[in-house]
Amino acid sequence: MSLDVPAPVATRGPVRVVGTGLLGASVGLGLSTRGVDVVLWDPSRTALALARDVGAGRVTAPDDAPVTLVVVAAPPDVTADVVLAELAAHPTAIVTDLASVKGHVLDSLRAAGVDLSRYVGSHPMAGGARSGPAGALPDLFLGRPWVITDSGESSREALLAVRTLAADLGAVPVAMHPRAHDDAVAVVSHVPQVAASLVAARLRDAEPAALDLSGQGLRDVTRIAASDPALWTTILAANAESIGPVLAAMRADLDRVIDALAQAAAPGSAPENVPGALGVLARSIADGNAGVARIPGKHGGTPREYAVVTVLVPDAPGELARLLTDVGAAGVNLEDLQLEHSSGRPVGMAAVWVLPGRADHLQKELTARGWRLAS
Amino acid sequence: MSLDVPAPVATRGPVRVVGTGLLGASVGLGLSTRGVDVVLWDPSRTALALARDVGAGRVTAPDDAPVTLVVVAAPPDVTADVVLAELAAHPTAIVTDLASVKGHVLDSLRAAGVDLSRYVGSHPMAGGARSGPAGALPDLFLGRPWVITDSGESSREALLAVRTLAADLGAVPVAMHPRAHDDAVAVVSHVPQVAASLVAARLRDAEPAALDLSGQGLRDVTRIAASDPALWTTILAANAESIGPVLAAMRADLDRVIDALAQAAAPGSAPENVPGALGVLARSIADGNAGVARIPGKHGGTPREYAVVTVLVPDAPGELARLLTDVGAAGVNLEDLQLEHSSGRPVGMAAVWVLPGRADHLQKELTARGWRLAS
Repeated sequence: MSLDVPAPVATRGPVRVVGTGLLGASVGLGLSTRGVDVVLWDPSRTALALARDVGAGRVTAPDDAPVTLVVVAAPPDVTADVVLAELAAHPTAIVTDLASVKGHVLDSLRAAGVDLSRYVGSHPMAGGARSGPAGALPDLFLGRPWVITDSGESSREALLAVRTLAADLGAVPVAMHPRAHDDAVAVVSHVPQVAASLVAARLRDAEPAALDLSGQGLRDVTRIAASDPALWTTILAANAESIGPVLAAMRADLDRVIDALAQAAAPGSAPENVPGALGVLARSIADGNAGVARIPGKHGGTPREYAVVTVLVPDAPGELARLLTDVGAAGVNLEDLQLEHSSGRPVGMAAVWVLPGRADHLQKELTARGWRLAS
Repeated sequence: MSLDVPAPVATRGPVRVVGTGLLGASVGLGLSTRGVDVVLWDPSRTALALARDVGAGRVTAPDDAPVTLVVVAAPPDVTADVVLAELAAHPTAIVTDLASVKGHVLDSLRAAGVDLSRYVGSHPMAGGARSGPAGALPDLFLGRPWVITDSGESSREALLAVRTLAADLGAVPVAMHPRAHDDAVAVVSHVPQVAASLVAARLRDAEPAALDLSGQGLRDVTRIAASDPALWTTILAANAESIGPVLAAMRADLDRVIDALAQAAAPGSAPENVPGALGVLARSIADGNAGVARIPGKHGGTPREYAVVTVLVPDAPGELARLLTDVGAAGVNLEDLQLEHSSGRPVGMAAVWVLPGRADHLQKELTARGWRLAS
């Protein structure tokens, strides 16, 4: 693997990481692994000790050289206060924060009336299934967008230092205006979180027999509904201004759907007699088609249609590896893979996503190798 | 593979399949593969010829024996009319339909005032990424729930015939009241479809730079937003009565979230000064936690927490197979697998879901084998 040797890094230490949760500890670990001196701090002694133990950095010493860069990885609601304290405590250091909302933090900093030339906001789009310093990984940010938001007062040197940090950790630096960032995450992250949570909340009152009919569609829509309420309360409140209008537009669409369904359900009104209502329903689904088609493809290019070949796989160790070996032997590149187990059956389905022109060939090859196809 | 030889079947032909789209053609193919005589019919000559060509059955002949079972696989809005015609044309046959909405079909049949003892509604929970007769598969229904809805007038013989059909095709027969079925699919399928479409519709107006920040969460929530508008218009209209109240409850929750965000965003109101609003946001996410926790586990048991080990995989044929071979060699059973490609990088992330107690061991083993871990 060409990935074994990290590239040389341009960031010079000591780098101070304040807040050693998943993100902070991963920044520390990523830099330490690449030979940069990292000093850790967290108000929680446990989190601090844990981060040190996983190799994210060292604790501060009396004869430390002045830090060059401070990375604030605190919850959004306390980020501005921590940034102000760090700017004051380290008068020659560049200070950045990793909070997932940027405008709110910047507004608070501006209200404090301090010089912001040494501050640059940033937001690495990483995280997901892990949490806490124990989940830290040196490559957490690899290939992820790392948004860098110029306050308008940020110095060229400060912007370059944060851009270098992102690049050193393998992320893809993306420059955005703070407000544009907040509007972007509202629509691609925060509103989807609210919708997933609201759909999942409806399952609380469902009959167990209804839940037994759950399929992959429901699992996909509600997967992120398992997210942490405390963290998300802070995020939603801090980005309320950007989220509000998107949710309001969604509510207007929802109102139209509810009204159309009421027309369709009215006694004596066969659906074919309410063409206006049917038009509303069709447009709602078609608008969703148009929106989802705009999500960039997994390789970052334009969206692309893939064909799916679904294969029955015995639920035993090694069977999936054998399938993928056969896919490779058929000369077909796997674009994506999704697994689904059947309820109560010793068999699963593997949905193999390939380029459309390769699906027929793959189906023939897999059938010839004894695999059974399904959907 | 023990799956190679289908079990002997109890269904006796000729079985008539009316409507040779994905579901009808798959029923025909599944039965034909298992040695049952299947006669096909579709108003579209093309669909009919295609279904015959993929091996779903034969076209009718003048000297055919009377059919024993008719399977109506038509769109929900025409299903009742087709069922009535088939009951009249085949006076000794059992007739079932596969429409995804049951109450609406049954109401129309009752309104016609005919004897319904030979009719049983049913709904196999299969489909997904494929469509049309060309997508037909003999194992489309394997391991999937197949809901069977007793009209109250259905004869014991008719119920048994449809139950046997489901079992012969490898599905799991589930008896439900038609109204309970419709309420169930409203909450586990139709409302998630509407929500996914509404979230995706918001992406139409998003900046391209915003879409570049799209992550796995957005992709999961909006995957089903790519569904067919014509089909879903019919489904939503036919199940308006069951969907309406669920959407109304969701709108009430959405209203509370929007109001709470407005409070949080009001000028001068720091989030910490609006504890009521924060409580609403926290409860919305927590309610989603409670709902998603009720979705049965992939193996049909109670939901279970898995640990995720995320591994960097070079985007080249054979690498994923090599990873899964190493997972197997580590003696760890793979519970689920999710792939994500990095934008513009020749590397992907494979999220390997394992039992929590096995994650540490797997991380050590994979690291020792030269894999790099990420998140």
